[in-house]
Parts: sequence; structure tokens; C-alpha cells
Amino acid sequence: MNTFLVPVPQPPFMYTPEESARFFSADAFAREMGVELVMVAPGRARVKMEVADRHRNSHGTVHGGALFTLADTAFALASNSHGVPAAAINAHISYMKAALRGTLTADAEEFALNPKLASYTVQVTDENGERIAIFQGMVYRKTPRQR
Amino acid sequence: MNTFLVPVPQPPFMYTPEESARFFSADAFAREMGVELVMVAPGRARVKMEVADRHRNSHGTVHGGALFTLADTAFALASNSHGVPAAAINAHISYMKAALRGTLTADAEEFALNPKLASYTVQVTDENGERIAIFQGMVYRKTPRQR
Amino acid sequence: MNTFLVPVPQPPFMYTPEESARFFSADAFAREMGVELVMVAPGRARVKMEVADRHRNSHGTVHGGALFTLADTAFALASNSHGVPAAAINAHISYMKAALRGTLTADAEEFALNPKLASYTVQVTDENGERIAIFQGMVYRKTPRQR
Amino acid sequence: MNTFLVPVPQPPFMYTPEESARFFSADAFAREMGVELVMVAPGRARVKMEVADRHRNSHGTVHGGALFTLADTAFALASNSHGVPAAAINAHISYMKAALRGTLTADAEEFALNPKLASYTVQVTDENGERIAIFQGMVYRKTPRQR
Repeated sequence: MNTFLVPVPQPPFMYTPEESARFFSADAFAREMGVELVMVAPGRARVKMEVADRHRNSHGTVHGGALFTLADTAFALASNSHGVPAAAINAHISYMKAALRGTLTADAEEFALNPKLASYTVQVTDENGERIAIFQGMVYRKTPRQR
Repeated sequence: MNTFLVPVPQPPFMYTPEESARFFSADAFAREMGVELVMVAPGRARVKMEVADRHRNSHGTVHGGALFTLADTAFALASNSHGVPAAAINAHISYMKAALRGTLTADAEEFALNPKLASYTVQVTDENGERIAIFQGMVYRKTPRQR
Repeated sequence: MNTFLVPVPQPPFMYTPEESARFFSADAFAREMGVELVMVAPGRARVKMEVADRHRNSHGTVHGGALFTLADTAFALASNSHGVPAAAINAHISYMKAALRGTLTADAEEFALNPKLASYTVQVTDENGERIAIFQGMVYRKTPRQR
Repeated sequence: MNTFLVPVPQPPFMYTPEESARFFSADAFAREMGVELVMVAPGRARVKMEVADRHRNSHGTVHGGALFTLADTAFALASNSHGVPAAAINAHISYMKAALRGTLTADAEEFALNPKLASYTVQVTDENGERIAIFQGMVYRKTPRQR
């Protein structure tokens, strides 16, 4: 059987807003970082974060790790939105502009969904709509075997 | 003038251990995360982090953003070790094993150094030497113009 | 002077369709691969390629290098479309579905444009609109200095 | 059952030099590109390519797609060296120096091997030992289920 050719099963259930909120609130690190949930829908998610001094690096701008965490949290919500546990296996981020202050937003969008793998693009923008970073991530999905 | 063909100038000064410690201690986010400096040398750096509950994601393992931040901090120290300010422009991370507990270490090593660009590979391992993640990052260097 | 804060100069000229065609026809490797130019506009480009047996890998599907080359050619056209020479400095590709036959299309879109750096996303689809791969690339731009 | 915790089974067989040569000779695209096999060992591979005019891009240097293909071929050989079919799922490449002429070599090395996923780093150098590019790739492995 070739995993890549199995048709994508309809998700047995979809996360409800309550389930998404519970998933997010179990994410200790994202909360510690000050990330807030804005929205989750099948294959999509939006989160935001208010820049604080504790997010800064040695150059005084928002740390790459903080921008990555913001994007990664949107990616986790979007990729787990189909009711199948999804674990990140790789991610790529390009930084286009230093972030300095205000509220940053990360929007995750699904590019493709397979039974075992799925990929997402996340855009990080500041409150003026300036494009700060773009992120591309892939998950391994624990889709139950078909019987 | 083709930037890529300019010979790499000898760095006008090398960070001393004191300068590296000062650079690191200015990194508010890394300290907030619990990252500790182990070593910096020209083009290399090692940092470590003790896993705590606040580093965990919704699956209970260490958050991708925390692993990325650990690797990114080693990358920042290594790429700024030549005395020329270096800003991360992109990074890629592959996660090979979930991290659960104990002390994680990130080792950054320079792959290549140009006047304007440099690239680094960072390996993240746990205290049993298990390979957790591999990271590849590139910086834009603000090398002063030759006169 | 901080390069990242310089306002983006208006391109001194825009590639005309004739100039884009000339740029593309100078790309020996893309032509060798069978890549064809469909369209170039400022910050965007589309190319296509008919799958042939010489594009296949040991598994009989289209080689990752052939898919990458197709995406990379769209990326080169889009990033050089502003009349400033742009050299690729890094790229990331995620493969979501094996490509087997027919015509593949790559669409490049600009995410952000700075004087020195710009980034692009490229989607590769087959003739049924199936999403084959997604590519993210960054260029270093040889924008002339302001006087 | 958690796929990530399954111990790595000993490969039922290891490719012999003859099998590696057969695997490589089935790679139509790599041969078309002029890639030559130098060596394959468990988790490692080396290939080379003589730069020819057909490998050049519009700037006259070796095309990113040609450098990627060279690295990708070493990656395919290394990741398929354990006797379990491995399909590339993503790859990242950083270009550090333009390649102009002579023989280019790509060396792939395994970073980590799981039953379902494995990751590799590939270095591309020219005949003077100059570092041209670094590549990081991940495969999905079709490891047979344990019974």
C-alpha cells in the first residue's frame, strides 16, 4: 500500500471552538510568550502577540525565536484543526523586516493535506500591515489506519 | 564592484569572552527562556537550557518555538562572534525526536563566511547525546565598506 | 546608515516583455530542462514544463531536482523583474505529492521587497490543479547605492 | 502505538555497491544532468558533476537548480542506502558562493534516522575545496510495519 495514494479520509470530527481553545490553553509555552488565540478554522488559524521588552534580542528588536514561536503556534493550531494529532517535523522562516513594537499577527494557511503529511504557510505582519516574516512548516499526522 | 568577490576582511576585532558575555546578557528573550551561555569562539557557540514545564506545547513535549530559540541563540552568538553585527535573515529547522526533559544543548558551527552573508549549522542534542533537531541559518552582515 | 531602513527606490526601469524573454532565453539550464516562460510581471512569474522520461528519478516519479529547477526558474524571473540583478541566497521546498506526467506549472509571487533582500513563494501544480510542491526563496539584490 | 518510539529495525539488507550503482543508474534525471556516482555507504554518499555550459543560468554561473540537483542526488543515495525506500519530503539549500567551472562534489551525511523519517546534510564544494552550498533534506521512509 502506498501511503501517498490513499485518499484523504474525512476527518472523524472537527475541533469545535471550545476544543481549539482547550488545545491552545494546553500550550504552556505559547501562553508564557504572551501569544493569544484569535481564530481557528479547518486548516487555518490566527494568533497575535503584543511586543514586550522580554521579547527583545541583543540588537533590541524582537528575537527570531519569539517571531518563530508566534508563527509556530498558528501552524500548530491550523495543523491540529482536523481532529488528527499533528507533530511538526520541519519549518523554515524568512525574516524580512525587524519588528519593534505593537501587536504582531500570525496567519496560518494550509497548502496541502495528505493522510500522513500536511504543509502550511504562515505570514507574520505588524499592526501597520508590514510584512515581518514568512514561515513554511510541515507536520507528520497520526492518521489512524484504514481497516 | 561585485560584493561576492570582495575578499573577506580580517575582522577588526574579535569578541573577547567578556564581550560575548555582554552580548548574551543583552539578549532578554534568551534569558527569559532560560538559555545559558556555555562557550563562544570565532564562528562557533554552545548554549544550553534545562527543560521546564513552561517550555511544553499542547502535546506535553518541548515546544518547537523553545527548541528553535535555543538553536537560534547559539546561531546569534556564533554569527556575531567576528565583531561585525549580523542579523538573521532566514533559518530552517528539522525536528527528529521529541525532547521531554533534562538539559538540552545547541552547538553552532560556521559553514561559510562572506563579507555580507554567512551561514551556520546548529545541532540540538539532549543529555544522552540523542539528536533532537538540526538547524541551518543565514545572516546578513553589516561589514563596513572598504575605502 | 542602516540598509534595512532605506526606502525602496523606484526601479529605474521595469523589464519589458522583451527584456524578460531575453533574460529567460539566457538561462541555458532552464531551457535544457524544458522549462517554458508563460508570464512575467513585477514581482511575479509563471513557467511550465512538460514531464518527460528524462525528468524521472530512481522511483520513476519527477526528480526533486527537476521540480526545484522549475520553481527556481519562476523565482529567478520574479526576483529579477524589477530591473535590479538578484542572486538566490537560499530556498526551501516541500514536496506534497509525487508528479508523474503532463504539464507542471510554477507560479512565483513576491512576499516582501527590500533594497538588499526580497522573498518569494512559488507553488507548483499539475494540470489537474493538484498541489505538487511549495517553494520559498530569498534573493540578495544588487541595488545601486543612493548618492 | 506511537511511531516515533518504535526502535529502528535493523535494515533487512544493505545495498551492495552493485545495488547502489543500479539505483543510481535508474536515476534518469541525475544522469541527464551529468552527475556521477563516487561512493555510497550506509547513511552517506558522494557524487560529482563537471560544470558545463548547459548548467548555467542567466547570470552565467551554475544554476541553483543544477546545484540543488547535485546535492539532492547525494541525499537520495544516502537516504536510500539502508534498503528501505525513502522519498524526499522537503529540502533547504543555502548558496554561499557562485560556482563557475571545474568539478563540483556533493557529500551527504545522515543526521538522524527514525523508522518513518530521516534527515541529511549535504555540502557542495568545488575542486579548490571552496564551500559553494549547504543543503538539508528530510525523507519519509516506507519502513514495513512490525508484526
